[in-house]
Amino acid sequence: MEIKQKIAVLVDGMRNKIVERRRDFHQHPETGWTEFRTAAFVAETLSVLGYDVKTGTDAVKESAMMGVPTAEILKAAQERALTEGAVRGWVEKMTGGRTGIVAVMRFSDTGPMVGLRFDMDANDVSECHEATHRPYKDGFSSEHANAMHACGHDGHTAVGLAVAEILAELKDELHGSVKLIFQPAEEGVRGARAMVENGDVDDVDYMLGAHLGFKMQKTGRIACNVTGFLATSKYDAYFTGVPAHAGAAPEKGRNALLAAACAALNLHAISRHSAGASRINVGRLDAGSGRNVIGDKALLRLETRGATSKINVYMEEEALRILKAAALMYDVEVDIKKTGGAAGGSNSPELAQYLQDEAESLGIFDEVIGTCDFGASEDFSYFMERVQQNGGEAAYMMIGAGLAAGHHDSHFDFDEEALLYAARILTVSAVGLLVGKR
Amino acid sequence: MEIKQKIAVLVDGMRNKIVERRRDFHQHPETGWTEFRTAAFVAETLSVLGYDVKTGTDAVKESAMMGVPTAEILKAAQERALTEGAVRGWVEKMTGGRTGIVAVMRFSDTGPMVGLRFDMDANDVSECHEATHRPYKDGFSSEHANAMHACGHDGHTAVGLAVAEILAELKDELHGSVKLIFQPAEEGVRGARAMVENGDVDDVDYMLGAHLGFKMQKTGRIACNVTGFLATSKYDAYFTGVPAHAGAAPEKGRNALLAAACAALNLHAISRHSAGASRINVGRLDAGSGRNVIGDKALLRLETRGATSKINVYMEEEALRILKAAALMYDVEVDIKKTGGAAGGSNSPELAQYLQDEAESLGIFDEVIGTCDFGASEDFSYFMERVQQNGGEAAYMMIGAGLAAGHHDSHFDFDEEALLYAARILTVSAVGLLVGKR
Amino acid sequence: MEIKQKIAVLVDGMRNKIVERRRDFHQHPETGWTEFRTAAFVAETLSVLGYDVKTGTDAVKESAMMGVPTAEILKAAQERALTEGAVRGWVEKMTGGRTGIVAVMRFSDTGPMVGLRFDMDANDVSECHEATHRPYKDGFSSEHANAMHACGHDGHTAVGLAVAEILAELKDELHGSVKLIFQPAEEGVRGARAMVENGDVDDVDYMLGAHLGFKMQKTGRIACNVTGFLATSKYDAYFTGVPAHAGAAPEKGRNALLAAACAALNLHAISRHSAGASRINVGRLDAGSGRNVIGDKALLRLETRGATSKINVYMEEEALRILKAAALMYDVEVDIKKTGGAAGGSNSPELAQYLQDEAESLGIFDEVIGTCDFGASEDFSYFMERVQQNGGEAAYMMIGAGLAAGHHDSHFDFDEEALLYAARILTVSAVGLLVGKR
Amino acid sequence: MEIKQKIAVLVDGMRNKIVERRRDFHQHPETGWTEFRTAAFVAETLSVLGYDVKTGTDAVKESAMMGVPTAEILKAAQERALTEGAVRGWVEKMTGGRTGIVAVMRFSDTGPMVGLRFDMDANDVSECHEATHRPYKDGFSSEHANAMHACGHDGHTAVGLAVAEILAELKDELHGSVKLIFQPAEEGVRGARAMVENGDVDDVDYMLGAHLGFKMQKTGRIACNVTGFLATSKYDAYFTGVPAHAGAAPEKGRNALLAAACAALNLHAISRHSAGASRINVGRLDAGSGRNVIGDKALLRLETRGATSKINVYMEEEALRILKAAALMYDVEVDIKKTGGAAGGSNSPELAQYLQDEAESLGIFDEVIGTCDFGASEDFSYFMERVQQNGGEAAYMMIGAGLAAGHHDSHFDFDEEALLYAARILTVSAVGLLVGKR
Repeated sequence: MEIKQKIAVLVDGMRNKIVERRRDFHQHPETGWTEFRTAAFVAETLSVLGYDVKTGTDAVKESAMMGVPTAEILKAAQERALTEGAVRGWVEKMTGGRTGIVAVMRFSDTGPMVGLRFDMDANDVSECHEATHRPYKDGFSSEHANAMHACGHDGHTAVGLAVAEILAELKDELHGSVKLIFQPAEEGVRGARAMVENGDVDDVDYMLGAHLGFKMQKTGRIACNVTGFLATSKYDAYFTGVPAHAGAAPEKGRNALLAAACAALNLHAISRHSAGASRINVGRLDAGSGRNVIGDKALLRLETRGATSKINVYMEEEALRILKAAALMYDVEVDIKKTGGAAGGSNSPELAQYLQDEAESLGIFDEVIGTCDFGASEDFSYFMERVQQNGGEAAYMMIGAGLAAGHHDSHFDFDEEALLYAARILTVSAVGLLVGKR
Repeated sequence: MEIKQKIAVLVDGMRNKIVERRRDFHQHPETGWTEFRTAAFVAETLSVLGYDVKTGTDAVKESAMMGVPTAEILKAAQERALTEGAVRGWVEKMTGGRTGIVAVMRFSDTGPMVGLRFDMDANDVSECHEATHRPYKDGFSSEHANAMHACGHDGHTAVGLAVAEILAELKDELHGSVKLIFQPAEEGVRGARAMVENGDVDDVDYMLGAHLGFKMQKTGRIACNVTGFLATSKYDAYFTGVPAHAGAAPEKGRNALLAAACAALNLHAISRHSAGASRINVGRLDAGSGRNVIGDKALLRLETRGATSKINVYMEEEALRILKAAALMYDVEVDIKKTGGAAGGSNSPELAQYLQDEAESLGIFDEVIGTCDFGASEDFSYFMERVQQNGGEAAYMMIGAGLAAGHHDSHFDFDEEALLYAARILTVSAVGLLVGKR
Repeated sequence: MEIKQKIAVLVDGMRNKIVERRRDFHQHPETGWTEFRTAAFVAETLSVLGYDVKTGTDAVKESAMMGVPTAEILKAAQERALTEGAVRGWVEKMTGGRTGIVAVMRFSDTGPMVGLRFDMDANDVSECHEATHRPYKDGFSSEHANAMHACGHDGHTAVGLAVAEILAELKDELHGSVKLIFQPAEEGVRGARAMVENGDVDDVDYMLGAHLGFKMQKTGRIACNVTGFLATSKYDAYFTGVPAHAGAAPEKGRNALLAAACAALNLHAISRHSAGASRINVGRLDAGSGRNVIGDKALLRLETRGATSKINVYMEEEALRILKAAALMYDVEVDIKKTGGAAGGSNSPELAQYLQDEAESLGIFDEVIGTCDFGASEDFSYFMERVQQNGGEAAYMMIGAGLAAGHHDSHFDFDEEALLYAARILTVSAVGLLVGKR
Repeated sequence: MEIKQKIAVLVDGMRNKIVERRRDFHQHPETGWTEFRTAAFVAETLSVLGYDVKTGTDAVKESAMMGVPTAEILKAAQERALTEGAVRGWVEKMTGGRTGIVAVMRFSDTGPMVGLRFDMDANDVSECHEATHRPYKDGFSSEHANAMHACGHDGHTAVGLAVAEILAELKDELHGSVKLIFQPAEEGVRGARAMVENGDVDDVDYMLGAHLGFKMQKTGRIACNVTGFLATSKYDAYFTGVPAHAGAAPEKGRNALLAAACAALNLHAISRHSAGASRINVGRLDAGSGRNVIGDKALLRLETRGATSKINVYMEEEALRILKAAALMYDVEVDIKKTGGAAGGSNSPELAQYLQDEAESLGIFDEVIGTCDFGASEDFSYFMERVQQNGGEAAYMMIGAGLAAGHHDSHFDFDEEALLYAARILTVSAVGLLVGKR
């Protein structure tokens, strides 16, 4: 039996397992950096399959983690994971939110290193409890307050485990090595950097990633040449001034509210860049306390974007200077925290073409789309950028899935058939690279 | 026995009653427009004393009420009042938050109408639960969440009832009439306008008001010529735009966050007024939702002030125009609500002098201060302004009281001895006017 | 002799005439809408060659003229033209600055209408008087104060006349018709709209235009597929407030200076457009009078741009609303004048390809560039847009020319050899279309 | 003959001389720091009268001069003065614009030092040439382009010389010493600081100053208790950025225009001061060049004021920080120059009372006004402040004068009778102090 056929049979045989795992993850969603239960399950499963599994400080560089919750939140999540059956040994390794996993299987001494990345985190969304919402109706909706898999990462993780199992099954027929990256905190583009800067993909020759749904909201459709990842940076700026009674002694205040307002306006006036799209948004501004008090506190949440990392760096530098100038303008302090970021970029054209050929030859997709302009941000771009900088190739697929509602919506759900399409194309693509088709 | 002496005796005899009532009010604090229990008790008590008592639509003009809570909050407060023993008949008359009371006693057909105003509402403060805090230690601290008498209005109400009782007692010796105003919602300067515009003080010849503490933080001290009430207006501006994804289609948004930021800056740039002090403060700005969404909602809480009502009107007109222009600037809607206001002004000099003479002749005050520049806002000013405009005289006293902490602080408490000083000077002053001393 | 060879010979024979005319125009530069002498010379010459010549109200729609000088300036320029030898009849027809010319020659009743556009106006620049500046050294520098051909339109006009003469010479070999457009006021993109809206190119099938130099600063180079014309609009906004003494009565002023400053900031904060490049620039802001007077006057000169006309319309609408909002913000008046504009667009690909083929086959160009992204604005785009909207094709060439200094610089000069290249490629292209090569 | 009567006779006898001198100064107006001809005449005249005269570096501290014209302008003015008959020796001493004069006469070894200050400079105004304008009609209007005595300093100087002459005449009857200060550059409040910081009034016990007209626009009226001098500071801020093409590469610019606009808005948003009037005005903003160029230059002319010097210092510090923050906001440079300043303050009450008594007892004034709230700025305040700080007394009078038009108007002229009133009251007041009346 030809290897592609074997894969078809193996995927079919795992149908129930994939769906059950997806539903289990769905029921126990964990937001960014708190994926203790999910990651422990992944680690344990891969370990049993024979993978060499690293996590905690071996997989994640602490200084490069962005947007990490408070120690209290991490601790509580860790305890909850244990309560919910996570293997203590793994969970303890992940202390501090270092829930990323790198799992390697070596098939031969020579041959390429093929990387695959799956993201595991859930959203800060409360899942809807309506009879028409399938996860609720079928009893697998979120059991965690204010957390929901509303973006499909539950499916990504389930698919990743299936790919891992099939590759292990086929190991005698493969060359080179496979490296599976299970990434925390993709939401808010917070997690990839800490794995990339840990060197996790420095030895990768081909890097693959995928997302269910998004711009392909129909099962059976696929796009293999994703371009136009917008580079982005996320910042929180905390302004601190001095309060004063606005009637009795306004001159004694130092006005953080006005500093933030001034910053917001001038941030939006950052000059356009002639080399391509640039973006700035102050999405949140909360300032002041009482009506009759000079506002002494302000928080501003903003993001920059650029068609390229270079344009984003330009936006970022402008933004940081403006925040400082706004603080100086009102004689207040500003504390700026980077809470997220992603690189710009596009799929490596040759690898994209290879994926497209595989998708077409598989014969299971109704529609294989050529180029898909992403126009948004995903921190897979960090892996992509690093691998491409090192001379490797990287590509990201959008795998069609019928959706019940848009991503991040409390009514989000997807057609679970799409999980099988994802498992098939990812395994086939990886195997092709591991048997030297390119 | 001379009448002043009688008053001294009567006040002394009421010492326990005054303190107990103050403590009862303290334990059951009711914030602006929800003073159902307090007001019902006042109404019932005055009615029993023989006063002609009006409340509800007879005392408060609904269209002039500012900063009224939602119907749900009012309803819940009304029910709580009943639970806590308020007389149902009075509480029902006050439906909608119309908790103001006007109580008149006619001593003779001719003679002056003497008005006294007492405010009844509590603050949006959670009372401290520390062993050193007397109300907590002595078991009369607030039983209501997020409500506390942290400004002394519990004392004002208790004093008002004492004055009422003594005047009723002395009624055969008095001429003219007395009109007692128990006002809701002084905090946020929300309540006086609705009583003034109802005509409640249109027939008043002499209008008296008082505050415990404030600039006289020592029991035994008093200031009788209070000047420099700052006129003020309070506004909430709600901006509504259209959200849009900040990366994918920013041009489709209509940015309420920037409209609010723009408004804040330009409001603070309103020109100074050459005729006297003017003030503007945007004390609160809350805008936007997610970092990557064009902010479609914003709330701005602001206030204007002026050394005179005229200057405040100038500030107000500028502010309202600027809010509309900021909305136009970003093509968003703005809904502006007036939530409070007070007039400017100063005590009538002759009446202030009369009060000062009475305070000095009483012999109980250690220190009778001349002029006290208020430099803040109190909506007693509306009563004062109306009476003065009609050719009458009005004056406000600051009656010293030792304080445990500043007004509006969760540790606030005052020396209850001050209640007796207040009852004495207010009764004596009113009686003097009612026996024709001026 | 083959027609292309004839053209080569004819162009060579006109070398001196072309250079002399260029130098004569250079010496008598006329800025936008004052090209009376230049246009009268063009009209007279074309008329003598047998063209049917229209000018004044027959060629230019007055209501669509933008950025027209004052009546005094126009009158003085008209008189100067007469003094400098212009034919009175033509000059009088052009009264009011309607100096555009449309000249048609009909070769056969059927066949295409081929349009060619040349611009005639000079810049508001004072020409340099240095020994190294060839026009000055050779005695043909500007004789008009504050006017100079610093963009090469003198060459364009001279080339246009040569093309006209050769086409007339070859008229028996041609089919269809040719329509020559000599356009005023290209600088500031002010003139094209008035000719397009007059319907001057409504019957044109192929529209050609060209510029010397610009992004092709080497003689012998050419680009035939110019893309990325930025649509643009130019506005002047005049704010009028009320002055007041800044110390004695600032509240009596209405501050036009702050209105303009506020407008400038908010204009630059217009949201990016996701469909392509957008631009905004306030290039000039002049406001106020004395330091101690509330500024009652302000002038703001701005422009918007867009990768497409649609994006530019978005920018324009935002800008106009913001200007009005800024006026409302400071209670001042604003008077907004549109002073220029151009459409967005790109060459018709087939026509561009045709031109490229002709350029290559001519054998005189060292370098035929493929696509050239313009990234700036030129009001030839209005002609292009109209012809393309009507189902015709339009294209613009950049014809290389060695430059002494950049465009609009007082040291600007170009290699006159380039005039011959321009005459050759324009005539050959037009003739090809007129003999039915497409 | 009593000394006051002598003074009356002497003043009357000088009537023609005073008027002629005033007209001569009027015809030869010299703006701030260029008063070479005027000052040389003053120096020569006082020297001849026996005064010890200092000028140049002996009278003016160069580092404290504000708003000094360029070297070219100073040089040209110096030469013009010589051409117009100024004594070369004096003019040369004044090189660099150091035109201030300090002239002392010592009457006795003991006794007070009485200072009188007169200002000499003209305005940057072109005098009107209408038949109804008396200076023009009578042939003594300004012979200097763009310079005019439109504020009455010509009269002040003429009066100062008369006072000097009479005091010299009466020297045997006087005790103590007199010190006459003839100050340059009062317009723009630029000159006083350089004399005060030179120590010119450090030994003065009583300091007198006066202005014709202003708030007393009727001959025969006088105000002796002038209060409410607003402290003020004048600044010019020059922003320098980097130009760039607004279409092709806006991100390469550094936008000085926006920096200035941002500064203007935020300057006007400086918080009010609770201790008294504060003012800010950006009276002039000129920025940018071409419409399509990122503006790389901007000039902002501003002033701050305060009811007291302390409030003005607060405004100044805020303003300076804001200017720097605006530069940082747009990554441009800012160069800030202080061009003027005055102190706040009020007349010494006792000295004001003395002056009022003298004015009343003289019997020549129709109306002696009590307190006059100035509400504007005059740099006499620097002298006043220094003398008061040293324990002395200082006062400023407004001496009524009928006016043809407001101060600084090109139609300004005053009733020359007022010169005699001024000479009388100033001499009498000084003499009174010098004979020990206080």
